[in-house]
Amino acid sequence: MAEEKMKENEHTIFVGGKPFMNYVTGVVMQFTTQNAKEVVVKARGKFISKAVDVAQVAAKRFLENQIEIKDIKIDSEEFENKEGKQVRVSTIEITLKKK
Amino acid sequence: MAEEKMKENEHTIFVGGKPFMNYVTGVVMQFTTQNAKEVVVKARGKFISKAVDVAQVAAKRFLENQIEIKDIKIDSEEFENKEGKQVRVSTIEITLKKK
Repeated sequence: MAEEKMKENEHTIFVGGKPFMNYVTGVVMQFTTQNAKEVVVKARGKFISKAVDVAQVAAKRFLENQIEIKDIKIDSEEFENKEGKQVRVSTIEITLKKK
Repeated sequence: MAEEKMKENEHTIFVGGKPFMNYVTGVVMQFTTQNAKEVVVKARGKFISKAVDVAQVAAKRFLENQIEIKDIKIDSEEFENKEGKQVRVSTIEITLKKK
């Protein structure tokens, strides 16, 4: 189990403000050159939509019939911003796996 | 099964460009005054992040310990835009259910 957990953490793509195709390429590379069995696409806040797009384009275009969505988790984190105000941000984790 | 399906369709909140709290209130009202057992929060494209926020705020703040996430589905649709170009848009469906 511990080893499985480690492997998962190695293959994580955190989606943010970089160009869209950087992340798609990242996912595809993990599955191909890195030979990952699973890749987790993570994002927070406004980047959640982009993370869903990344997962969809990887699964439906670049690695069609090769990978599938194993699991999707949503959650939220509370933290204090610079002004000392409590802020809540949503998160998503999309686990893709090799078929 | 057919009846179950119909009930689900009655309790759908489609998240778009209206103010955030409209959708949260919509979800809360479905569970409270409408007595829904399940509510499906749906969105497309850039509104996916907002849909996740709506589900999180409803489940963690307004209906804390009363509802939970039952299922999350992501998918994408292809269609032709005004310029006759093939466009792909991601979709999300978050099913919330009463505990």
